[in-house]
Amino acid sequence: MAEKGLDIETVQVDLAAGEQFGDAYRMINPDCVVPALQLDDGSCLSEVLAICHYLEALHPEPALLGNEDEECARILMWNTKVEQQGLWPMADAFRNTAKGFVDRATTGPVAYPQIPALAERGRKRVEQFFYRLDGRLAAVEYIAGDSYSLADISAMVVVDFADWIKMSLPEDAQHTRRWYESVSSRPSAAA
Amino acid sequence: MAEKGLDIETVQVDLAAGEQFGDAYRMINPDCVVPALQLDDGSCLSEVLAICHYLEALHPEPALLGNEDEECARILMWNTKVEQQGLWPMADAFRNTAKGFVDRATTGPVAYPQIPALAERGRKRVEQFFYRLDGRLAAVEYIAGDSYSLADISAMVVVDFADWIKMSLPEDAQHTRRWYESVSSRPSAAA
Repeated sequence: MAEKGLDIETVQVDLAAGEQFGDAYRMINPDCVVPALQLDDGSCLSEVLAICHYLEALHPEPALLGNEDEECARILMWNTKVEQQGLWPMADAFRNTAKGFVDRATTGPVAYPQIPALAERGRKRVEQFFYRLDGRLAAVEYIAGDSYSLADISAMVVVDFADWIKMSLPEDAQHTRRWYESVSSRPSAAA
Repeated sequence: MAEKGLDIETVQVDLAAGEQFGDAYRMINPDCVVPALQLDDGSCLSEVLAICHYLEALHPEPALLGNEDEECARILMWNTKVEQQGLWPMADAFRNTAKGFVDRATTGPVAYPQIPALAERGRKRVEQFFYRLDGRLAAVEYIAGDSYSLADISAMVVVDFADWIKMSLPEDAQHTRRWYESVSSRPSAAA
């Protein structure tokens, strides 16, 4: 939204207080995860990719999912890799150790206990992901190629949230560091 | 591909023999996962969503990602829910117990040991997913609404692969059963 300069009314859901499990939010998304986008007809879209895709269709510029089909496919490919190799392992590491997530180790309305071994594996995978990115970013400016895209936003979230599990970019991941310095200094990153 | 009647040359990768970890396949996808689509210029696309999006753009009919923006967003939303709540938990259950996956509990080139507690959690989540689908399919014919879509294909994969972890649709998930009977009898399901 910030990259596209969209001014959409936002309502914060108090996750720490469990507001996402309350009846009001369940009417918006019965899977109890944020974010959700309410459309003019009152219906709601959830899941980040779906919301981004919809906003891109309505407001194509600046493009965050590419300007043509092959570029869009490559961005979706990289965004999926970032989610699978970075975001979910980071969430595994966080949710399976954080004190506030005892018996809430997965998103959603069902209580599942934490699995410490999964948190440990998550940390290793996040580190591996930073080096995977480094190999990629040695060859290209942005993750999906020449242009800043949704894949960069997703990867920036991994780096920013890594702080929560007391991890940071490895000193020797120099290309990832160069990329992070660039993307995190965009005005939208402060939004 | 079968739904769209596309005749694209396919090459099987021998996963049981570890061909995905060999040098030849790493040139196609360094993350060592299938499938991948080779384009005319020799470059390769990986990740299912990216490949489906690309094929849909080239061959729009029959639409599996919707005919207009809001429909597409809803399909992507449901497809994400199916992946998060069904496919990944199913993969967790399978990869963290199967004898052939000792030290290959995640996809990709790095060896991670199996986590039995994660497999157990995966089984519970798959069962929960079948009931989640049942609630949805009590109200609509297909997962994303009135039309068959990528979300149905992804969910059909969960049901079909559940067999590998010796699970099946609960007897009382009648709407999911009605839906599965319908989607699995499409000619494309035999492909």
